[in-house]
Amino acid sequence: MFQTFETAGERDKGPERLAAVRAAMEKVEIDALLVPRADAHQGEYVADRDARLRWLTGFTGSAGFCVVTRDEAGIFVDGRYAVQVKDQVSACFTPVPFPKVKAGDWLADRLGQGARVGFDPWLHTRAEIDALRERLGPGIGVLPVGPNPVNAVWTDQPAPPQGPVRLFPDEIAGKSRSQKIEEICTTLEAAGQHFCVLSLPDSIAWLLNIRGSDIPRTPVPHAFALIEAAARDVRLFIDAAKLDGVDLGLPVFAPESIVQALSQVSGPVRVDRDTAPYIFGHALEEGRVEIAWAADPVLLPKARKTEPEIAATRAAHLRDGAAMCTFLHWLSGAEARVLQGERVTEIDVVRALEEFRTATGTLQDISFETIAGSGPHGAIVHYRVTQDTDRALVPGQPLLVDSGAQYEDGTTDITRTVAIGEPTEDQITAFTRVLKGLIAVSRARWPEGLAGRDLDALARAPLWLHGQDYDHGTGHGVGVNLSVHEGPQRLSRTSMVPLEPGMILSNEPGYYREGAFGIRLENLIVVEPAPTLPGQDDRRMLSFETLTWVPIDRRLIDTGALSAEERAWVDTYHEGVATRMAGRLSPEVTEWLGRATAPL
Amino acid sequence: MFQTFETAGERDKGPERLAAVRAAMEKVEIDALLVPRADAHQGEYVADRDARLRWLTGFTGSAGFCVVTRDEAGIFVDGRYAVQVKDQVSACFTPVPFPKVKAGDWLADRLGQGARVGFDPWLHTRAEIDALRERLGPGIGVLPVGPNPVNAVWTDQPAPPQGPVRLFPDEIAGKSRSQKIEEICTTLEAAGQHFCVLSLPDSIAWLLNIRGSDIPRTPVPHAFALIEAAARDVRLFIDAAKLDGVDLGLPVFAPESIVQALSQVSGPVRVDRDTAPYIFGHALEEGRVEIAWAADPVLLPKARKTEPEIAATRAAHLRDGAAMCTFLHWLSGAEARVLQGERVTEIDVVRALEEFRTATGTLQDISFETIAGSGPHGAIVHYRVTQDTDRALVPGQPLLVDSGAQYEDGTTDITRTVAIGEPTEDQITAFTRVLKGLIAVSRARWPEGLAGRDLDALARAPLWLHGQDYDHGTGHGVGVNLSVHEGPQRLSRTSMVPLEPGMILSNEPGYYREGAFGIRLENLIVVEPAPTLPGQDDRRMLSFETLTWVPIDRRLIDTGALSAEERAWVDTYHEGVATRMAGRLSPEVTEWLGRATAPL
Repeated sequence: MFQTFETAGERDKGPERLAAVRAAMEKVEIDALLVPRADAHQGEYVADRDARLRWLTGFTGSAGFCVVTRDEAGIFVDGRYAVQVKDQVSACFTPVPFPKVKAGDWLADRLGQGARVGFDPWLHTRAEIDALRERLGPGIGVLPVGPNPVNAVWTDQPAPPQGPVRLFPDEIAGKSRSQKIEEICTTLEAAGQHFCVLSLPDSIAWLLNIRGSDIPRTPVPHAFALIEAAARDVRLFIDAAKLDGVDLGLPVFAPESIVQALSQVSGPVRVDRDTAPYIFGHALEEGRVEIAWAADPVLLPKARKTEPEIAATRAAHLRDGAAMCTFLHWLSGAEARVLQGERVTEIDVVRALEEFRTATGTLQDISFETIAGSGPHGAIVHYRVTQDTDRALVPGQPLLVDSGAQYEDGTTDITRTVAIGEPTEDQITAFTRVLKGLIAVSRARWPEGLAGRDLDALARAPLWLHGQDYDHGTGHGVGVNLSVHEGPQRLSRTSMVPLEPGMILSNEPGYYREGAFGIRLENLIVVEPAPTLPGQDDRRMLSFETLTWVPIDRRLIDTGALSAEERAWVDTYHEGVATRMAGRLSPEVTEWLGRATAPL
Repeated sequence: MFQTFETAGERDKGPERLAAVRAAMEKVEIDALLVPRADAHQGEYVADRDARLRWLTGFTGSAGFCVVTRDEAGIFVDGRYAVQVKDQVSACFTPVPFPKVKAGDWLADRLGQGARVGFDPWLHTRAEIDALRERLGPGIGVLPVGPNPVNAVWTDQPAPPQGPVRLFPDEIAGKSRSQKIEEICTTLEAAGQHFCVLSLPDSIAWLLNIRGSDIPRTPVPHAFALIEAAARDVRLFIDAAKLDGVDLGLPVFAPESIVQALSQVSGPVRVDRDTAPYIFGHALEEGRVEIAWAADPVLLPKARKTEPEIAATRAAHLRDGAAMCTFLHWLSGAEARVLQGERVTEIDVVRALEEFRTATGTLQDISFETIAGSGPHGAIVHYRVTQDTDRALVPGQPLLVDSGAQYEDGTTDITRTVAIGEPTEDQITAFTRVLKGLIAVSRARWPEGLAGRDLDALARAPLWLHGQDYDHGTGHGVGVNLSVHEGPQRLSRTSMVPLEPGMILSNEPGYYREGAFGIRLENLIVVEPAPTLPGQDDRRMLSFETLTWVPIDRRLIDTGALSAEERAWVDTYHEGVATRMAGRLSPEVTEWLGRATAPL
């Protein structure tokens, strides 16, 4: 079982640890210290060693940071963690609503001229520090400090992870390591960049056709890489113990030695201001090496999946879909028991789902902690059940289940909202509007060149017409046996990156009635050149292929509110589910699926 | 009659005039000269005096420019003028496709190091010149020259216009001149800007509650204004003859003296890099006055119409709508004559429409040249009929009519596409998709803060689904007795300006089948806080009120392809037309309107 349900929290240790950190700050003569959630790789998951924010404050959310001054400690979290943070941290930490209040503003109100703010140059990006410096002005110093003052007082800090690295098959990647290195080096040469340094583990994993196991949920190794364009040469900075038995044919160095290596190359060196550790730019500047600030060159090639990657992902989705169907069949049985007065809880749901995925025999990991929200918990967008919050399924209150898996051939992410007992008219209305949004995106075609921002309205319009909306993006990028949240492509008003064939995205509109219920439906989709239609313009159009094949709860659909085209989409989709699942399910599940996918 | 139908063109004089300009270039020692279409006010219409591009080349389009070197002369026009330019200019001018080829690239290919490119510093903005300088690099000079070399050889160049200025009623404006000055000065003070210089005539007309008559179609005076924030003082730079009998209570200076005035004020002076003449920044820099580059501060307040402005515009649209209904009734008679073999042409259509608008007794001007495109001419987005192109109405070929009017109480802009004889299935299908786009925008609701870019897809989705689209924005801003094309608000992928209550826009999706027919439907709409709906979220939503009330040709609608909601929108809209036109039309037109607005 990957998912756990403890209420982490060492809340009571906060005051003592905070005092120790303040003592360490004194030693390096700083008036304030930034304690981010991030590690040097800026990902969504961190190893236990890097869980400095959790160790110091007790806060376990996936985003946030702490700013410690001599007599205050602000813990900055966004709206989704506003309640959780109060439960998890001791009173010596003051919750601060982020991004409404920014660290710079908060610090500017508290520090005088001449004050010194310290930060660990491995844990922050150049963009972050630049923004902070601009806000604080020349009168307040923002200075790299080392070693990290939290590490200095965290006596039982775990060692860095040493998760084994494995090779990722060329047949799934669709391009060999040397083809990928050639491609990236060509890009660098065209831009006149002699070197490029990578710090994102999924960029490195993609480039070298490897996978790792240093952090939960995302199969990547902690590493850095330095690419020399003209030589087609990649130096890998990684703990060599992780490579036991894996020969990449590349020179390997200790991770920290990247700083020394950077100071000795000849520029321009391409560095990503938004993702690379501050210390990279610092080392280059100290060594008077010219820097070319530009986005990680792997981001776009990685986002444009190859045909073999897409084919593999399709297969992974069919296996995952079968597990999901088996789970939904189990859930229909659980529902029957609930209606007879038995107690079935969110944790039971999470366990069952993970067991069905494990039973595929191919589950590497779940791709994130399953969200199973009964009734009002469904309205908490990033809800994660613990023993403390575990809630029973209740007749008349829908269950929202958002989950995903890591398989060698693909990463999945799917949300279904399922009626428990008789749904209310209100729930059916909301569900149907969300479904209309899902369908609008699924059916969309658009002229080449448009970004997520240009399409986001299609998913929301059915809710907007009734004065409703949801406060998250419509979709995020998804990797292939990599991160379940990957950029740069997104279906969101914040995304100006043109969508290109091969990009995998989630399509997940929702609706949340606080204190009552939440609705979300999510399929993964992949951008493809749109099939030609009779009478179409002479212009290149793109469209989406759906990757996820799992029934949508018919009891929550108001068929009369669908247009003929929408109704046809649902029926065709369900027919597609039935066809694809044929032969993959037990007789009982197959029988259940027949009913679940009957025409509207 | 405002509109004329001559085929302007002095094509044959091109070579001789080009030679004269080259001689003038020699005198000021430049290797290349920019000849823009723009005047110092960067508007869509120019006075005859400023029609340098037309005088030199014969080209009469609304956008373009010429770049003259010692042995070449490129005339840069966009796709919509690609055919027209070839007809209008002599062979000594080489058409260049813009923006595919930019002036900088074209010049860089032709000029050597040390070359000098001259431009009239009144006719270009800082943004334009900066972009050109950046492209050409330090080796090629881009230099202001004066007097303008075209003026120097244009012996019978008309004098600057002296169109009378009139007061614009406070009751329509909704704010007095002093209120507006107070508002703008407060904005300047908040930004720490001591002065601000205005060069856009509609900004000045709005600020001072005046209208002018220096150029066709847009009732504005050529003028500049210098605002001193702390003093709430506005100095107007205008030919005093235009103010005969109009006392604004403001100091008035000759237009050219603005340059001298700028060099003597104390900065920061706010200047709009995208709209102000280059010479403003130049004068300030020469005088060592600090410049605050920022958008014209009038743009947004002018775009947010006041309640009285909206009320007045509604009234103007009802009068204009009655003229349009009368015209459409006339057109149905013309159609009957065409079906009997009579000849009715595009020019007949334009004349009739203008006559019905004139008959309102309130027409100040048309707001742009009426586009009346029969059959294939409808597919030319910016078609303007001349005696040479005039085409008869043909049974089976729809007529597209895009027109508008200037009234003291509002500016209108409306497009209707009307069947002539029996429409084809193809035309009906296309019309219905365009109508679905118009309806989607008309019915839209969205959370506050969204820009035109975020909504544009709603209008296009019905076409996209069939692999179709249109190559223009969905809508542009519209003024109140000001410019029919006004910024910054737009319904377009290029517009990131949040829509705000009071902003008037056009809603004009289209579809164009080259060589066959064009479909466009256009209503004006105004942003309003969305009326509250039962069950809606606790969030501020915006929606559109429709201002245009003229029937949509029912013969071109495939009712079966509309959703119930779309069908209801059309019926409600037509009912609204009938109600609002009651008592405004002759008995015959009323009778016709009854049929034209019958439920689908």
